[in-house]
Amino acid sequence: MKKTILLGHGSGGLMTSELIREIFLTHFNNSILNTLSDSAILQISGTDLAFTTDSFVIDPLFFPGGDIGKLAVCGTVNDLSVSAARPLFLSAGFILEEGFPMEDLERITKSMADEALHAGVRIVTGDTKVVKRGQCDKLYINTSGIGLIDRRFVSIAGGSLIQPGDQVVVNGYLGDHEMAVLAARENLGFENAVFSDVASLNNMIMSLLEAGVKIRFMRDITRGGLATVLSEIAVSAKVGIRISESLIPIREQISGICEVYGFNPLYLANEGKVVMIVAKESASQAVKLMKKTETGTHACIIGEIGNSSPGRVLMNSIIGSTQIIDKLAGEQLPRIC
Amino acid sequence: MKKTILLGHGSGGLMTSELIREIFLTHFNNSILNTLSDSAILQISGTDLAFTTDSFVIDPLFFPGGDIGKLAVCGTVNDLSVSAARPLFLSAGFILEEGFPMEDLERITKSMADEALHAGVRIVTGDTKVVKRGQCDKLYINTSGIGLIDRRFVSIAGGSLIQPGDQVVVNGYLGDHEMAVLAARENLGFENAVFSDVASLNNMIMSLLEAGVKIRFMRDITRGGLATVLSEIAVSAKVGIRISESLIPIREQISGICEVYGFNPLYLANEGKVVMIVAKESASQAVKLMKKTETGTHACIIGEIGNSSPGRVLMNSIIGSTQIIDKLAGEQLPRIC
Repeated sequence: MKKTILLGHGSGGLMTSELIREIFLTHFNNSILNTLSDSAILQISGTDLAFTTDSFVIDPLFFPGGDIGKLAVCGTVNDLSVSAARPLFLSAGFILEEGFPMEDLERITKSMADEALHAGVRIVTGDTKVVKRGQCDKLYINTSGIGLIDRRFVSIAGGSLIQPGDQVVVNGYLGDHEMAVLAARENLGFENAVFSDVASLNNMIMSLLEAGVKIRFMRDITRGGLATVLSEIAVSAKVGIRISESLIPIREQISGICEVYGFNPLYLANEGKVVMIVAKESASQAVKLMKKTETGTHACIIGEIGNSSPGRVLMNSIIGSTQIIDKLAGEQLPRIC
Repeated sequence: MKKTILLGHGSGGLMTSELIREIFLTHFNNSILNTLSDSAILQISGTDLAFTTDSFVIDPLFFPGGDIGKLAVCGTVNDLSVSAARPLFLSAGFILEEGFPMEDLERITKSMADEALHAGVRIVTGDTKVVKRGQCDKLYINTSGIGLIDRRFVSIAGGSLIQPGDQVVVNGYLGDHEMAVLAARENLGFENAVFSDVASLNNMIMSLLEAGVKIRFMRDITRGGLATVLSEIAVSAKVGIRISESLIPIREQISGICEVYGFNPLYLANEGKVVMIVAKESASQAVKLMKKTETGTHACIIGEIGNSSPGRVLMNSIIGSTQIIDKLAGEQLPRIC
């Protein structure tokens, strides 16, 4: 049987990695792409730049806490930010389905503009394509972005600074985005509304960098969730990571929904969360500074980099056992980003 | 009745301009975007860069002379090149339909890699999304790109250098791309196959710039065709343009097909053509240098910038009359790029 693309290839987990390795890296093969970091790190005429791209295909377009427009700006701002870059310029490419309501396009465009203003970036170039009815699901947006990296921070993106003893920090509750989108799509009637965490993280991240927090590495926690991000860090940096289940910030409501529906919150997608690997002596300062910002009020340390088990993420569970945490293997709930 | 998106909004002509002005410029409003040039012209830490984005939704994916992958590389390379930038880095964002054959994805990826190598650019960052069956038409690709602009050429992109007496030069036959795609899609049995002109123009353009050809302005001739590009130049540079129908290079076969099907070749899309406005004293050198390159063998002068009728394009027709040439008003044949 001929191999075809499956939904799991877009999950951000194991199947996505395989697709990238087998097809894209094989053919596009170059030293910049091969690092597979959130942004490509470029040097042009002595200037260090980050460059990244992301397509947004979320269903539904509007959800509690945001919409595809805000998501498209935040997603690319965050990919640049976790590469220690100051996001400057975005592009916006729209694929529109014939018959899409003009007022929805205007609302989404305004949402992009508002978020760009908030994040301090400018949308400087764009493209519009229209396809026939039934050839896209209402609207897809691609944003690409360019950020400037201060020479002092240019080695953060590579991950080579990570060392045993470093602390693992997250900036707040996990899983809100995926649950908010799921609830909106499936019309699930939760007792209290769940709101997406979608937010630009550049101001928070920059405040830590400028304060001298020794950030060794960062990744935003999107598709595939915390589990996938940590697994990828453990493998690529060849370190062991140990986290404690009891320290992982998850709202009681989200835990409850996960229990009912059988989801594992470690695999839920977020759009305003970052995992930072921070030098031990900087970790409490990092948390303190995060808490001062609107995107980090529930920041905390959840684990550390260990000496043993390189390539593995181990979790001390609440009941006292040790679990191996793997990256997402199958499908994410589709179209949450 | 509520206003909705129509196919014409993606034509690259009048309706696209209206959509851009009414929605995107209104909200994204900033001095870089507002120029509406092929690329955004950025200055970062004293380095002049061009930044552009394009989504490719062509149907069919494979056509005589190319495929969506080659198109996606050439399109963005050309948008950078006509801004007088040396294209350096591309991103690639894939939206894949569940069930898409893996071997087609590999063939398209290889085609992108081959063209990137040929054009001397690197694909350094990417993104993959998968949507359910029926939520996209097989595969859409977004490419964004960054190019470096030599300080000597940075004012070319703005169009302010254009002046009366400048010559209008094109690098060869018009309409091949759209006719090749149409033939492939509709299974039209032309007597001789028509091949798309899809090609990266950066090497040709750079050879002219480096030789000192006084290029005042450039645009690639894609959606909307020569007529739309020239109309936009006339309006934005507030100059009159006069062209001669007898000088416009169109293959006899393409003219014939246009006559049968009622197309106007001036509105046909191309993917390897540029219109250059060149200082009078440089025009013959420009044509001579173009002819030495593989993408310019049929280069020629087709008209000039006049003193009168600012904002208008006038064409001396073969039968001796003068026609006003407007930009594309309705739909392009859809999905040719």
